[in-house]
Formats: sequence, structure tokens, C-alpha cells
Amino acid sequence: MKPRLKIVKIGGGIIDHEPALREFLRLFAEIAGLKILVHGGGKGASEMLAALGQVPHLVNGRRITDAATLEVVTMFYAGKINKQVVAGLQKAGVNALGLSGADANVIQALKRPVQEVDYGFVGDLNESSVNADIIHQFLQLGLTPVFCPINHDGRGQLLNTNADTVAASVAKALSRQYAVELHFCFEKKGVLADVNNDESVIKKITPAEYIELKQRGVIANGMLPKLENAFEALRYGVEKVIIEHALHIGEALKTELCLS
Amino acid sequence: MKPRLKIVKIGGGIIDHEPALREFLRLFAEIAGLKILVHGGGKGASEMLAALGQVPHLVNGRRITDAATLEVVTMFYAGKINKQVVAGLQKAGVNALGLSGADANVIQALKRPVQEVDYGFVGDLNESSVNADIIHQFLQLGLTPVFCPINHDGRGQLLNTNADTVAASVAKALSRQYAVELHFCFEKKGVLADVNNDESVIKKITPAEYIELKQRGVIANGMLPKLENAFEALRYGVEKVIIEHALHIGEALKTELCLS
Repeated sequence: MKPRLKIVKIGGGIIDHEPALREFLRLFAEIAGLKILVHGGGKGASEMLAALGQVPHLVNGRRITDAATLEVVTMFYAGKINKQVVAGLQKAGVNALGLSGADANVIQALKRPVQEVDYGFVGDLNESSVNADIIHQFLQLGLTPVFCPINHDGRGQLLNTNADTVAASVAKALSRQYAVELHFCFEKKGVLADVNNDESVIKKITPAEYIELKQRGVIANGMLPKLENAFEALRYGVEKVIIEHALHIGEALKTELCLS
Repeated sequence: MKPRLKIVKIGGGIIDHEPALREFLRLFAEIAGLKILVHGGGKGASEMLAALGQVPHLVNGRRITDAATLEVVTMFYAGKINKQVVAGLQKAGVNALGLSGADANVIQALKRPVQEVDYGFVGDLNESSVNADIIHQFLQLGLTPVFCPINHDGRGQLLNTNADTVAASVAKALSRQYAVELHFCFEKKGVLADVNNDESVIKKITPAEYIELKQRGVIANGMLPKLENAFEALRYGVEKVIIEHALHIGEALKTELCLS
């Protein structure tokens, strides 16, 4: 039987609120067994870009990462947030190890090809991007990897990657050796049937139901790539994918994604 | 016989000049055997503080690290510089692993006690600060640790530490298991007898000679704590301490420190 491994992804909604982040780290520390944390960015990087007199460019909700933006998001994600989270976890008794993809060559990304839009220094991941062996070695040493969404291309270039994609890719790569549970945590209790009712959590979604919910417009925007990532993870052998509130991990009210 | 380990520290003079840093990384990649890199800060953090409208406070040449300054130096050292160096080393074929002291609890610092001056969030290191065992494990995995000078206190607080001190402390802690050579690299070819003559390198300095050079004012300012760190490292069992030019590692012209 494969050993169990929980991979938890948190987004900006938690990271931007220090008391919420502290509470999340306390809850994450209580999760027994092997675990990995993946964190996104939050609004801080945009605020810092603004403070430095730079305007973030968004296309279809995605930031265009020019050289100056890459520098700031690298500082913010790999420096400030990652080290704050790692130090907070150490305080809570978790032997965390902060990682960008460049560290130990753990994730190698490919700069997104320029088609209609040039997204700049954005890295996409493929099946061979994640070095599962070194993550396994870190877990064996009793460490809890904490990934920020900054990767590299192996040729000296850092690249900004969607954090949901990082979480799903790490989950897929480790599903060969581990029984992986992937938790996408955010500031809602799950995928909502009614965006105005926080309790209207859809408890289970299959791919067929997802298509229908998408067509009806119930699932939209940032939730779309999250669910695409989630189903792909399940198809690759990840055992469970759950979407839930970061401060209610493991509680009954949540969305579980299933292939059937 | 203990395995050999080279620990190389580079400072701001190299970090601030991208072509010099690139060339240094190429040279560092060529060093055979086990190795560790420790990097300092450079002027970038001060420039960023200025761009954000903050004025760095210095007392006796040391930065006072208030909360806002700590945030920026953490972003700059642990984010920008560390990841740039790690990605550059990966390109050069070195499997680098960037580390702050919080990562894997590898260095735990103590907030400097407030006496005449409150240095703020500055961390001092003592004999039990460095976790030699986990560094040994990383080396065993074929990884090259790359330390930035940001540590933690184990209670969730990040602390800014002098990078020379980090290098000397790591060297001391690993000297029990390894035959350690510690290289302090900067933009001069060694300790100079005449500050106006870059070729006037003093080839060997003993503690008695150091006292004399200090009294004559030949050694002053930032070189003083560097040499204090260096001699202490030798007393703790570090086999060799060398002060040399970052772009002339291993060349004949350099300063070697000796206990006698």
C-alpha cells in the first residue's frame, strides 16, 4: 500500500490576511502524516509593484509577467511569503523547507510560447517538470516542502507559474509513489451553487456535472482552471481532490471532485 | 580522514554586478567536490527601501533592521538574490538548494539583545545555531546549499544576520565532520597592506600580526569582523581560511589566515 500524502494549496485570500494565515498554519501543523504546502501570491505583489510605480498588466485575469514584474513577484512569493510561512510552520513544530522550482531543480518549467498573447516570464509545466524523487527524499528526511509558484527553466531563467498548476503537478508526479489527497483551500467552503450563499456548497462534482455547471455559468473565472487542474490530477492517479475553506480543513462541508 | 568541503562566501560587491556574478557562478561551478555558497546582500535592498520611500538607518556601519526593513531585506536576500543565484547555478550544472535559516530549521538565531543600540530584527548566532546534521543530509543528496543571511528564532520571527557570520558559523559547525576550507571572497585579491594598491596582498596573517595590523590601522572597518570571524573559525577546527577575489578563486595571490 502506498503511504498517504496530503498536498494543500492556499491562495491569496488567506495569505493577504495575517490572522487567517496564522490560523491556517496552526491547522496545517495539526495534519498528521506526510504533507506538502503550496502557496500562491496574494495582492501584496501588485501593491508592491504599484508602490514602486509599476502598473500590473492583466490579460484574461492573468498577470503579464515582464522582467520588472518577475523580479517583484520573485521577491514577494519566494522571499516574503515563503519565508514567513516557513518560519510560522517552524514555530508550530513543522520542519518546513521552502522551495522554488529552481531549488534542488525540483520543478522545471517551460516559458509559455507566445501565441495571441505574450504572457512574458510565465512557466508552464508538463509531465516531466516535477522531480518526484527529490521531493520523496525531502519527505524521507522528515521535511515538509513549502512551494512558492516561482520555477525556473534550467537555463537560468526564473518563471512565474500558476500556484494551482504547481499543486496539481506535484500531486500528479507524487501519485506514483504516494496515495495523494490534494486540497485546494480558499476563502469559501467549496464550489458554490449560489455565489451569494456561502453555505450552498456542491458536495460532489463529476466531469459531466462540471461541464453542465460551466455551461450554466455556475462555475466561472478562476474556478475553471482550478477544476481543470483538479480533474486532470484525478485522471493521473491522485486519489482525492477536495475544494474547501482554508480555515475548515477536514470538515464535512466541502466539494469533492470525482471521476464518476 | 574527513571528506573535504569548501564553503565560499560572496558579498555585495559581486552580487551588485550581474556580469561579475555570472562569472563568479561559472567559477564556483568548476570547484570540484562538496561545496556550500553563502551570499550577502549588496546595495539592492537599500535601493529598494529608498524606492519605497524608506531611509535605511546605519549605526557603526550596520543597518538597523526595523520591521519594514526586515520585510524588504527578506524579499531581496531570500527572494531575488537567492533564487537568481540558485537558478544561475542550476544552469551551470550545480544542483543548488537555496536556504534561509528557517528552511529545515537549518540556522536558528537569537535576536540581538538591546544594549546601547537596538539593532532591531538582527540575529546573532551561537555554537548551537547551525544544524550540521541536515546540511550533511543535503550534501549527501548531491545538493549544494546556498545560504542567504536571513535566519529565524524558532518562534516565527525572521532575523537578519551578517553573512560573514553565517559563513563562519556554518564552517565551524561542519568542521566536526568535514575538512572545511572557508573562502571569504570579495572584490579585492586579499587583505591589502596598502589600500591604494590592489596588488599589495598580505599573503599570511596570524592573530599576532592581525593585532599589529589593526593597531596600525592597516585593517579597519568591515575587514575587522571578517577577520575576527575567520580566526574564530580556525580555533574551532576549520582547516583553512582564505580571503581572496571572487573572480580569482584558487589563484596564488590571496590572504591565508593561520593560527601561528
